[in-house]
Amino acid sequence: MTAESLPKDALIETLQGLLGERLSTAAAVRERHGKDESYHPAKAPDAVAFAESSEEVAAIVRACAAAGRPIIPFGTGTSLEGQVAALHGGICIDVSALDRVLEVNAEDLDCRVQAGVTRKQLNQHLRDSGLFFPIDPGADASIGGMTATRASGTNAVRYGTMREAVMGLTVVLADGRVIRTGGRARKSAAGYDLTRLFVGSEGTLGVITEVQLRLHGIPEATSVAVCPFDDLEGAVNTAILTIQSGIPVARIELLDEVQMDAVNRYSKRNEAVKPTLFFEFHGTDAWVREQAERVGALSAELGGGDFRWASLQEERNALWQARHDAYYAALALRPGAQGWPTDVCVPISRLADCLLETKKDIEESGLLAPVVGHVGDGNFHLVYVIDPDDAEEMARAEAHNERMVMRALAMGGTCTGEHGIGYGKMKFLQAEQGEAVAVMRQIKQALDPDNLMNPGKVIAP
Amino acid sequence: MTAESLPKDALIETLQGLLGERLSTAAAVRERHGKDESYHPAKAPDAVAFAESSEEVAAIVRACAAAGRPIIPFGTGTSLEGQVAALHGGICIDVSALDRVLEVNAEDLDCRVQAGVTRKQLNQHLRDSGLFFPIDPGADASIGGMTATRASGTNAVRYGTMREAVMGLTVVLADGRVIRTGGRARKSAAGYDLTRLFVGSEGTLGVITEVQLRLHGIPEATSVAVCPFDDLEGAVNTAILTIQSGIPVARIELLDEVQMDAVNRYSKRNEAVKPTLFFEFHGTDAWVREQAERVGALSAELGGGDFRWASLQEERNALWQARHDAYYAALALRPGAQGWPTDVCVPISRLADCLLETKKDIEESGLLAPVVGHVGDGNFHLVYVIDPDDAEEMARAEAHNERMVMRALAMGGTCTGEHGIGYGKMKFLQAEQGEAVAVMRQIKQALDPDNLMNPGKVIAP
Repeated sequence: MTAESLPKDALIETLQGLLGERLSTAAAVRERHGKDESYHPAKAPDAVAFAESSEEVAAIVRACAAAGRPIIPFGTGTSLEGQVAALHGGICIDVSALDRVLEVNAEDLDCRVQAGVTRKQLNQHLRDSGLFFPIDPGADASIGGMTATRASGTNAVRYGTMREAVMGLTVVLADGRVIRTGGRARKSAAGYDLTRLFVGSEGTLGVITEVQLRLHGIPEATSVAVCPFDDLEGAVNTAILTIQSGIPVARIELLDEVQMDAVNRYSKRNEAVKPTLFFEFHGTDAWVREQAERVGALSAELGGGDFRWASLQEERNALWQARHDAYYAALALRPGAQGWPTDVCVPISRLADCLLETKKDIEESGLLAPVVGHVGDGNFHLVYVIDPDDAEEMARAEAHNERMVMRALAMGGTCTGEHGIGYGKMKFLQAEQGEAVAVMRQIKQALDPDNLMNPGKVIAP
Repeated sequence: MTAESLPKDALIETLQGLLGERLSTAAAVRERHGKDESYHPAKAPDAVAFAESSEEVAAIVRACAAAGRPIIPFGTGTSLEGQVAALHGGICIDVSALDRVLEVNAEDLDCRVQAGVTRKQLNQHLRDSGLFFPIDPGADASIGGMTATRASGTNAVRYGTMREAVMGLTVVLADGRVIRTGGRARKSAAGYDLTRLFVGSEGTLGVITEVQLRLHGIPEATSVAVCPFDDLEGAVNTAILTIQSGIPVARIELLDEVQMDAVNRYSKRNEAVKPTLFFEFHGTDAWVREQAERVGALSAELGGGDFRWASLQEERNALWQARHDAYYAALALRPGAQGWPTDVCVPISRLADCLLETKKDIEESGLLAPVVGHVGDGNFHLVYVIDPDDAEEMARAEAHNERMVMRALAMGGTCTGEHGIGYGKMKFLQAEQGEAVAVMRQIKQALDPDNLMNPGKVIAP
C-alpha cells in the first residue's frame, strides 16, 4: 500500500505534535476523506487533521501555509461535485468534532453552532424550543459544509437557502487569521457582505468554523399531501401556477415516474408510478386549509389526481424520508452501479420546457436517470445511475449533462441550483458567468495568494 | 467663484469629447452632486458626467482610471451618510438618464432595470402587471443607489431588503471592464456571490448600471391600521411579540410621540400624540383578517388603544405617505434647522432596551430627535434636528449618536440597519466588524488598486 508507506514529512510531524492521535495518516481514513457522494474520482489527502476548535483550525492552517501545502475542509463528505477530493494533496481538516450548538436565542429566532453540527443534530437540539432549522439537503450534512456549498433543499421555496439562513460566520483565512463576519441583527448596511462571499465558496477562501443561523417557529399547523399526474407537464404546470399565484407553499416537490418506481421499491411504498407532486403547507389551521384548497383547485384543472393527505405525523415523516432517500432509491434500481447526480435551475416560466426537453433527451440517450425537482424554485436534479467503468456510458452521461446545463443556461438559468461547482462544473461556471469569473479569481488571489485553500475547485488559477 | 474658474484639464477635455454637453462643470450642477440629504459636509466633484449607457459609464471610468482621478456614482443624491461627497475630487457619474425598465418577466416575478430608474417609476411601470417592487426607503431613490447602499424600508420585515431583492447586476469595474453577476434563477450554487458583494458596496467597488430584481404579486387583500399606545414599551413589545409569534406582517412601523406630533403638523393629520404603531397585512381576505385579529389581541394585552382601520385606498396612501414624510416632518419642527438622520438595528429581543435607553438619553441630552422604527426588523432611526453652525449642539448630537451605536453593538446589533457607512460611520464599522474590515480592505484593493472608486467611503485605505 503506497498509502501507508508515505514518508513522514516535516508538516505531518508538526501537526502530530499539535494534535497527537488526532492527526491520521492511515490509508482508510485518508481514502474516506478524499471521496464524496459523487461519481467524481476520489483523491486522498496526505493526512487528516481532526480539529476541535477554531484556534486549532487556525494553527493547522498556519502550519500548512508555512509548508505551502493545500488545505481541504471536510464536514460529512456528502458533497456532490467532488468538493472534498485532495486534487493537489495536502491536509484534510475534518471539523466533525466541532459539534457544539453554542447558543440558541429562541426569542430572536437565531442560533450559533460549530461547523461540524449536522442539520439533524441541530433540529434534535431545538426540539423543545418551538423552533426549527428548515434547510434540508438529502444528506444529514454538516452546517459548515452546507454553508460552504450554499445548500438548500425541499423547504427552500418557503424559507430560502443557506444564502438567506446564514447571518454570520467565523472563518479561518488562508494565512491563519480568524475573522467573524455578519452579526445577529436581521439586517445591516454595514460594509461589504463578507458572510455571503464565504457562503458558497466551497472551502476555497477559508475554513468555516462557526455559523450564526436564522431559525423559524414551528408552524401551528402543517399539512402534507401527495398527488399523481397523468403527465409531467401537468405536474410542472401546477407547480408553476402555484408559485405565480403567490401561494406560500412550504414544499412542492416533483418526482418523475422513474423516481416514483424507485421510491416504491426502496422505501416499500405503493404510490402510483406516475409523475407526482409532494406538497407541504405551513400556517394556522385556517390558513393551511385555504392554501391547500387553492392548490388542489389548480391541480385538478391540470390533470392532477386526488390529493392523498398524510394526516398522521408518522406518515408525514415516512413520506418525506422516502423523498430524502430518492438518491439511494435511484442507486438501488441498478445494483452495483454508481450515482452521478447533477442539477440545474431555471426561471420558473421555463421549467416545463427545460424538464420536458431533458426527459426526452434522457430517453433518447438510453440512460437510467430518475428526476426529482424542487420545482417551486425552478430547480431539478437527476441522477445518472451508471457503471463508471463503462467509458461509453460515462461519455453518454457527460454529453447529456452538458446538453442539460447548456439548455438551462440558454433559458436564463444556472448550471447548479444547489450542488455547487466543485471540480465537476468549473467549465460550466465559466460558460454561465463569463467575465465575472475573472473577478472571482481576483478575490481568490487576494485572500489566498498561494492557492492553498481547496485548490482546483470552483475557480481555475 | 472658484467653482467656475477651475482650469480645464485633460481629463475634462477628454470627457467633453465623449459626452459633449452631458459633461458639466457648472458650479450649481457640481454642488448639487456633492451633497446628499445628510448633515455631512458636502464636497463638489470636479465635473459631473451624465451617462446614458453602461458602455458610456465604462468609457468614463476608463478615462478617469487613465488620469488617476476618482469616480463617484450618483443616483438621486438621497443618501444619508455622505456617500456622494467628492472627498478627493474627481468625476461624478450621474446615472439618472439610465432610466429604462429593460424587461419585466411577469410570469417569473422579476425584472431588469437600468440603475437610474427610481422605485416609484418602477412601480408606476408595473401598475398593470399585478406585480410590485416592495423596497421603499423614504426617498424616491434610484434602484442603483438603493442597491449600492443595501437599502430597505417599511416592507423589509415581510419582503426583505435589497440584499434579497437583487438577483443580478451589471457593474463597471475600476478598470472599465463590464461584468454581469448573478442571473435569473431563484437560487444558484454557482461560484462566489458577487451580486451580494456589490450590494451595499456604496460605489467603492464599481459603478452599478443595471439591476435584475425580484418582484412580488400584489396581494389580493391588504389592510392597514394605526394603533396608539400609552407608553413606548407597550408598542415595542407588541412588535416583538408579533415577530416572535411568526405573524407575517407586511409592515409594522413605530413612531414615537415626538414624531407623531411632527407628522400631525406636517401632514395635517389628527393622530394621538402617543407612541404609535402603523400596521399593514397582506394576503387573502380570510388570512389578512386572521393576522389582524391576532395582532389586535397582542396589542390589547400590552396597552394598545383601538386599531383604527384605513379602509379606503386614499386613506391608506395618505397614511403611508405621512410615514414616508417623517423625515421632512421632523425637519419642519424647527425651521432653519438641518437633519442628521442615523439608524441602528439590534436583535429583536433587545429592541425595547435599546429604544428606551436611547429615548432617555435623548431627553437627558436636550436634543430634538424624533424616533421612527422598522421595529419588526429590530431597526430604528432617529433624526437630530439641529443647527449645524452650533458646534456645542453638534458635539452633543455626535456624542449621543456614538453612545447609541455603541449600545446597539453591545447588544449584538449593527451600526446601521439601512443607511450604510458612507464617510459618517467608518469608525463604527471598525468597532463592529473588527478584523473583518481588513478583509474588506483586501477585496477593495484587489478590485480597485488605485482607490479611485468613491474613495474615502466605507473602508479607509
